[in-house]
Amino acid sequence: MKNREIEKLQKVIEYTFNNLEVLITALTHKSHAAGSGFKNYNERMEFLGDSILSAVVADALYKRYPEETEGKLSQLKSQIVSAQNLSSWAKLINLGDFIFLGKSEDSKEARNREGLLCDAFEAVSGAIYIDGGFENAKKFVLKFLDGQKEIEITDYKSRLQESSQSDCKELPKYKIIREFGPDHDKKFEAAVYIKDRLLGKGVGHSKKEAQQEAAKKALENIKRQS
Amino acid sequence: MKNREIEKLQKVIEYTFNNLEVLITALTHKSHAAGSGFKNYNERMEFLGDSILSAVVADALYKRYPEETEGKLSQLKSQIVSAQNLSSWAKLINLGDFIFLGKSEDSKEARNREGLLCDAFEAVSGAIYIDGGFENAKKFVLKFLDGQKEIEITDYKSRLQESSQSDCKELPKYKIIREFGPDHDKKFEAAVYIKDRLLGKGVGHSKKEAQQEAAKKALENIKRQS
Repeated sequence: MKNREIEKLQKVIEYTFNNLEVLITALTHKSHAAGSGFKNYNERMEFLGDSILSAVVADALYKRYPEETEGKLSQLKSQIVSAQNLSSWAKLINLGDFIFLGKSEDSKEARNREGLLCDAFEAVSGAIYIDGGFENAKKFVLKFLDGQKEIEITDYKSRLQESSQSDCKELPKYKIIREFGPDHDKKFEAAVYIKDRLLGKGVGHSKKEAQQEAAKKALENIKRQS
Repeated sequence: MKNREIEKLQKVIEYTFNNLEVLITALTHKSHAAGSGFKNYNERMEFLGDSILSAVVADALYKRYPEETEGKLSQLKSQIVSAQNLSSWAKLINLGDFIFLGKSEDSKEARNREGLLCDAFEAVSGAIYIDGGFENAKKFVLKFLDGQKEIEITDYKSRLQESSQSDCKELPKYKIIREFGPDHDKKFEAAVYIKDRLLGKGVGHSKKEAQQEAAKKALENIKRQS
């Protein structure tokens, strides 16, 4: 990659590296390192960036949703740091174009792969943390997070209903099969049936949460069986 | 809790809060909030602290082990942030004594429970982050991490060998049953047998890693069956 390209990327991410080597490592895929003189590739930085991203997102959610429970915040966080979402952030800055890929791996499709993009996004977050500290990494991540439209928590019950209606024209039925735990920490277990067949069970801090969990399990079971 | 106690804890953790409310929330268990005038308890802060801890530990491991792979760093991190290890850190500062617990829950045993201690340790880490920023939270966590003797990666193969010798006087046998993936990202699948019975399979980036994974699965299967 030419210097001009690296400069372009730094402009796009609005962060200028003190040590360019760090950025270059973050952009280097294992397949490139293998065949070139590069000793470093981005896997270790991706490990670090994954945790940094997670901390920044947890902090932002904690402040943005002062009334939400820990359970809901966890759910939101895992959607935000999912490979799908991080790769969509990577696409916003065309990160795929800047990755050093091995020649045999290189193709337009490869540079668009979710895993590659997500890993590189994590690695760049880690690189900014190494080079510029937590506050700079936070600034980088928040630009994407703040720009994102409201994250919706996946509604598994609706998805299960759609799937069962299209498959067998039957609606799922939910039962609360158990309540347990001390008063201040009561839990519920729900089961979901389609045509009297048990499809999934789930536990939650409310009946609604338990039903959502049961629906999620049912969707997983249906997917596995098909 | 008396002011003197709170002061004592702040001395022990070597951090003085700007806003004591934050520390008090971190120390308040849900069971206490339910029966008292306290509106806030530590679950949300525990959510935040979990991610902050994870970032600090990832950073420390990244720097401490410059030659280790991402896989090994992840393994180390999950052992360090495990409930077992965090609760042992909590015990070093007698954190259990400082938690506000509901009256009906309160007992010496309750204050020694792994889950309670781990959650409170996470919450205090989150509280320091909220009150004093990332660098102060890092300083707090690193005192425990640096004080800890070398973390050993659990050696599942040895544990399986001990268990099988004591149970049936036979040694586990390993086979590499598959190699797959591109050259720069080759993976191996291992299977482990005791008395010709398949007990577990595992995948890894090296034959050794795959065998460790297979042994881990075998130990889980043996535990489930017994």
